[in-house]
Parts: sequence; structure tokens; C-alpha cells
Amino acid sequence: MPCHLSPPYRCAMESREQPEDVVSSARLETFADGVFAIAITLLVLEIRIPDPGENVSRALVDLWPSFLAYVTSFLTIGTIWTDHHRLFTVIRGTTHGFLFVNILLLMPIAFLPYPTAVVARHWFEGKDQVVPAMLLYGGTMALVAIMFRVMWLYASSRGLLVAEAASSRAVRRRGELIYRLAPLIYVLGAAASVIDPILSLIVFLGLAVYWLSPSRRGANSSRP
Amino acid sequence: MPCHLSPPYRCAMESREQPEDVVSSARLETFADGVFAIAITLLVLEIRIPDPGENVSRALVDLWPSFLAYVTSFLTIGTIWTDHHRLFTVIRGTTHGFLFVNILLLMPIAFLPYPTAVVARHWFEGKDQVVPAMLLYGGTMALVAIMFRVMWLYASSRGLLVAEAASSRAVRRRGELIYRLAPLIYVLGAAASVIDPILSLIVFLGLAVYWLSPSRRGANSSRP
Amino acid sequence: MPCHLSPPYRCAMESREQPEDVVSSARLETFADGVFAIAITLLVLEIRIPDPGENVSRALVDLWPSFLAYVTSFLTIGTIWTDHHRLFTVIRGTTHGFLFVNILLLMPIAFLPYPTAVVARHWFEGKDQVVPAMLLYGGTMALVAIMFRVMWLYASSRGLLVAEAASSRAVRRRGELIYRLAPLIYVLGAAASVIDPILSLIVFLGLAVYWLSPSRRGANSSRP
Amino acid sequence: MPCHLSPPYRCAMESREQPEDVVSSARLETFADGVFAIAITLLVLEIRIPDPGENVSRALVDLWPSFLAYVTSFLTIGTIWTDHHRLFTVIRGTTHGFLFVNILLLMPIAFLPYPTAVVARHWFEGKDQVVPAMLLYGGTMALVAIMFRVMWLYASSRGLLVAEAASSRAVRRRGELIYRLAPLIYVLGAAASVIDPILSLIVFLGLAVYWLSPSRRGANSSRP
Repeated sequence: MPCHLSPPYRCAMESREQPEDVVSSARLETFADGVFAIAITLLVLEIRIPDPGENVSRALVDLWPSFLAYVTSFLTIGTIWTDHHRLFTVIRGTTHGFLFVNILLLMPIAFLPYPTAVVARHWFEGKDQVVPAMLLYGGTMALVAIMFRVMWLYASSRGLLVAEAASSRAVRRRGELIYRLAPLIYVLGAAASVIDPILSLIVFLGLAVYWLSPSRRGANSSRP
Repeated sequence: MPCHLSPPYRCAMESREQPEDVVSSARLETFADGVFAIAITLLVLEIRIPDPGENVSRALVDLWPSFLAYVTSFLTIGTIWTDHHRLFTVIRGTTHGFLFVNILLLMPIAFLPYPTAVVARHWFEGKDQVVPAMLLYGGTMALVAIMFRVMWLYASSRGLLVAEAASSRAVRRRGELIYRLAPLIYVLGAAASVIDPILSLIVFLGLAVYWLSPSRRGANSSRP
Repeated sequence: MPCHLSPPYRCAMESREQPEDVVSSARLETFADGVFAIAITLLVLEIRIPDPGENVSRALVDLWPSFLAYVTSFLTIGTIWTDHHRLFTVIRGTTHGFLFVNILLLMPIAFLPYPTAVVARHWFEGKDQVVPAMLLYGGTMALVAIMFRVMWLYASSRGLLVAEAASSRAVRRRGELIYRLAPLIYVLGAAASVIDPILSLIVFLGLAVYWLSPSRRGANSSRP
Repeated sequence: MPCHLSPPYRCAMESREQPEDVVSSARLETFADGVFAIAITLLVLEIRIPDPGENVSRALVDLWPSFLAYVTSFLTIGTIWTDHHRLFTVIRGTTHGFLFVNILLLMPIAFLPYPTAVVARHWFEGKDQVVPAMLLYGGTMALVAIMFRVMWLYASSRGLLVAEAASSRAVRRRGELIYRLAPLIYVLGAAASVIDPILSLIVFLGLAVYWLSPSRRGANSSRP
């Protein structure tokens, strides 16, 4: 995979010549994929199951904030995974330090089921409860966005990108203004819960869908 | 893997010529496998453990709806994974949009432990409780079936299938009438809980086993 | 991987000639590895955390059956994974039916955290409670052993083994008498809890360690 | 992967000549990655969600030991994964016995969410409760460190290392004094909770960051 552009024997030769510390990112990707997959699947455990004797249809209707929070967090983690996936198509290998940065990125991602549950459980309790819950959620998302940028800067400054990366769509997109402002948008979105918590979720959902949608600028720039 | 039909050096050449956005589906498959594996394994967490002091044998007998729901959901997720696996044998790569569609498919799959638990917990509570629980279950399954079809249409309309896909068993099977009607069958199966909830589970189990069993039409059409 | 004994271009040729349904077992192995890894890691969730205000040292001491059950189930799932791993070194690919058999094998494996928790929670409650709990545990293990044999018979009868499999250690070992008797031993071991539940765990632990240890007969039969 | 230094056809030849029992470590790595990823992601489930009606901001502030324990355990498991990853770059394959050793290593790692939860839940309860909790935590970490050394000795004594391993950074680093003393440091760090539990967490966090940071001695020894 790191040398998918050359026939295998040349690939083997090249890997001999690399400095000892740059190794295949295959296991990093497997590990990260595992954390993403588990975090996204654990979200369901935080939705309250109606107790025996409770009215099921009414309980399910009243749980709509949990379902909406589930969808928001699911799409958000899905988005981050997609971005991680896309960036690794232009990364040629990993160093020890880069593993460290990735673990710091995975920490807030694996944490996301917690703020999701806090927001869902306190949704109906008035602003005194829902605003701090939402700030925890937005703050976690801001941390993810910041760590993503750190990972990106680290990879480009340490020469971990493949040669043609500069012109790739993954790189161009990460440079867009909205990516730079993401941490701020997440915090402002969380603050919007002062008006109505639904506003915050709309901002978060909107960002997730925006990240997921294919870049428009990129559309007319496939390689000739 | 995406070019397993050609010697590796040709494979490397071909991948250079593909438009930038079509990348190996290896990580998508790893991620999806993770979500499937976790969702299928989380099912067990939703089975109630008899409390200290409770009569264990009686409790285990009374929990039969939980065990039956476990088996049904396990076989169902197993089936969907098998289908996902089979379809990716004829998919040559993934685009950004295709990742998005797959995340939308994984959302109801990762959600399945929840309706499974709701059904199991309210099984003995009369139709007012068990019918909405079963509709949640059947509705989730219908959503999975719909997203599977969307994924399939997306892959074929965007040229993500390998050339010989049209004649492959995976493709032929997806075209069968029962696959097209699956969402409807799941909802009708859930509605059958108005008569008896066991009817719904029989329909769901029956479908899972049907999907899992090898296609009969396919049996006499292995490549000459 | 399915054709690791030939240079890649021959491998590619051969895979063209195989009937459509025999595909690489790579994704089956990834999926199974995921289920094994999750089931083995979920075990920890079932150990009760001492409540706030409880005496921690005494609670930890009193929880010894939970810790012992954790170790037993961990080693057992680890063993089964090892065996699964070893068998797949002689399997050349998978069919649709073989996926089905594997899903049936994974079902009792993913279920194991449940009987583990039931046994640990009712350990001190006298034979009326602990014997049925242990029978549930032993019965689940017996089911795993039976499904393992079914998987094995399926693979050998459908021609899914590589040519040199018959002389391989993995195959020889599965033929040993103790493997054939495993389901019976698990049930008898569970029944031994009528005397003392610790006896059952000793039998289960003993089997796990026996499976894990390298075969003695195999020791002097490495290929010349 | 085990023969990434030779062109694929030579690789295929070599693998024929290896004794039957040395097989690719690919599945072992996938399985271990899964256990690491799940253990690290399960940590979040142990953080208490503020109950409905509770003051959210105050509850979140009071939960700081849970968050600190989360960060400590996350970085620790991340570290161990990084180390595992690094060591497998110099391991050429696995035997049945080596699988066994790895399962024994994974057991305390998968167990870590439990002591993490015990420590967090009893943090404010005085030394009678927090010291045994911390000893459980430190003892588990010591066990991980010991098993890591066992794994390492096993691999080197059974000839599972690639030829150039002796000069590799992974190997040099494992030989440092601090690695040899790690089990002792973890137990002493836990004992420091007699003075103040925060001291223990500082020791554990400090070790995790130390392991994660690139080796200084290694910095001027990249291959010429």
C-alpha cells in the first residue's frame, strides 16, 4: 500500500532504503479503523431502553433527542473516518511520533459517545443543564478538529506525504477556510444552545453533512 | 485486491490511470467489518443477567424471547455482512460519495441492538407494547434493506463495478424479486405482531435464513 | 493469501479459473477476528465495580469468582481464536455456504460473555443456582466445539483445503480423540458443579490450556 | 508482509521452506489491534453519566478523576499498542506458542477498563478505599509490562526476529533500564497513593508519555 505505485520488487527495494523509522501505516489504519468502528457502534448503548411496564410508543417518541443525537454523532464519526481515510491515501508511511499524534486524535473521537449521552439525557431539563452538556459536546468536536489539523501539519512538515499529495483533492480540501474555522464553529454551535438546543444539533449535523459531501471545487479537477 | 485479476505491475499501472477519487475499498471493508462485528457482538450485552437471589433456571427459561431475539438479530446481521462481503467481490474501488452511502447503510445496522433489546424487554406485555417495539425492529430492518439497494444502485450507476459483474451471482441475486420487496416484507412482518409477536420473529428469521442460503438459480450457472 | 504458494501472476491466473463462488477468505478472517476480539474484550464489562461507599479491598477479594471466570473465558476465547487462525492456514478460500457455517460458529462465541456473567454473579448462591448457570456455560462451550467440528467437516468435504492440508499439524490435531470428545467433556465438566463449582472451572481452564499448548505428537513431525 | 524484503515470487519460495509452524503474523496483528482498539474505546463506558435532574456542570466538574483516569488509561493503552506495533516490525512470523504468549499479554490489557473504573469511582473516599483501587490499577499495569518482556524474550529466544532486528530501534529501546524496571515503577507508583492518589496518576501518565516519546538515543542512529 505505501508503494502501490511501483511494481512489488521495486517496492521492496525502496522500503530497504527508507530510514528505519518510517514504516507502513497499515497497522495504524487498522487500529484507527477499529477505534472509529467501535466508537460509532457504542453510540447505540447510550440510548435508554424503555423500562418494563413503560408505554413503549410514548417512550420512543419522547426519546427523539436521543435518536437525533445518535444520528448526529454517527454521521460526525463517519465523517471523521472518511476524512482520515482520504488523508491516508496521500500518506506514504508512519513514524513513531506520527503514531503518537494519531492516538491523541483518537482520544476525543473515542470519547464522543459520552457527551452524546449527556446531551440526550438532559435535553428536556432547561438551559442550565443543556448548555453545559452541549458545550461538552461542541468542545469535544472542536478538539477533534484541532487534532486533525495537528495531524495534518505534522504529516506535511515531516515529509510523510507522497510526492503528488500537494495537488490531491484530500489536501486541497483540508486547506479550505471552513476546515480552518471548524473548532470555532463547533464551539459557537454549542453556544447556540442558549437560544435552543436544537440549533446546536442543526449546526453539528450541517457540518457533518458538509464534510461528507464531495468537494464542489474538486469536481472539475480530476487528473487529466 | 481491486486489481486481483492482473499481475501486480499491470495493476500498479492501471491504478495510476484511474481518476484520483477511485481508491481501494480495503479500508472501507475493514471499517464496515468492524461495525458489523461490533454490532453483532454487542447484542449479548442487552440480555438481562438474572439478579442475585433470583431463581436462575426459571429466569433463564423466562428469558427465551431475549435468546430468540438474539439469534434472530445475530443471523440477520450475519446475513447482511455476508451480502456486503459478496457485493464487494464485484466492486472495483470506492469514491468519496460511495463512502457516504456506506456510512448511511451502517447507521441502521449499528442501531439493531437497540430494537432487539426493546422487543425482548416488552415481549410479555401485551400488544399495546409489543407491536410498536416490533415496528421499530421491522422499520430498522426495512431501512437496512433500502440502504442496501441504494448502495447497489449507486455502485452500478457510477461505474464502480468490475466488468464481469453483470453476470456474477452477487448481482443476479440482488435482482431477485424478494430482494426488491424486502423492505415491504419487513414492515408487514412487524405488523404481524398484531396477531402474535412470534409470527414477526418467524418472518425475520425466515428472511435471514433465506438470504444466507445459497441461491438455487445460481446453482447451475457456475462459469464454464 | 489464498495463493501464497505461487508467484502473484500465476496466482492471478489461477483465481480466474476457480469457480465464481470460491473467493478469498480475507474478509471472513477480518470479520471473525473482530468478533473474537470484541467478545474477549467485552468480558471485562460484566465484572461488577464496587459501589461507592463499599469497602474496596473486601469487595475485590469477594469478586474472585468473577476474576476466575474472566480468566477462564478469556483463555477459552483466545484458544478458539488460535484454533480458528491455525485452521485457516490450510483453507484456500471460502464459499457462500462456508460463510454461513462460520456465522453459526461465531454465534455461541459472541454469546460467551453472558454465561460468564451469570456464573460469576450466582457463584455463592448454592447448587440450585450455580448448577444451571454452569450448565449454560458448559452448554455454550459444547456448542462452540460442535460448530468447530461442523466447520471443519464442511471445509474438508467441499474441497476448501489446500492440497498439503492432510499432513499439516492443524489437521492432525483436530483429529485427536480429545477434540472429538470436547462437547461431552464440557457438559460433564459443567455437571461437576454439583460437587463444587470450582471443579467445573478447573475442567474448563484445563481444556483451554490444553488446546493452547503446542501439540506433542506434532513436535517431531515438522516437514523434512 | 513477513517477506517484505524480497520480490513476491522469492517470498513464495521461501515460505515453502519454512517449518510448518512459522506462519504470517498478519492475523495475530489484526486480532491484537482489535483488542487494543476495543479496550481503549470501552474506557468511555465507565464514566458515569450525570443522572436526570442532577446539576450537569457541577457533576462534570466533580467527575474530573474519571476524566483524568480516562486520559491516563487511554494514553497507556495507546502506548502499549505503539510498542506492540513497533516490535512487530522486527518479527518475521508467529508460532503457536507465540500466539499463546500474545493472548496472555492481551489479558491484562483488555482488563484495564476495570481498574480504571474502580479508581475513578472511589477517588474521593479516603486512603482505605483509594489505595487498594490504585494497587489494582498499578498491579495490572505491572502485569502488562511483565508480559511484554516475556513476549520479547520468547520472540528472541525462538528465532522469530528478522536478522537485522538486533540493531533496530525497537530492540534497543526495549533494552533500556527503565523498561526493565517498569513493573516495579508501576507498583511503587500505585503505592504512592498512600500520600496522594494524584501522585500515582502522575507517575502512570508520566510513564505513558515517556514510552510514547521518540527515543533520544535512537535519534542519531537512523540507518546510513
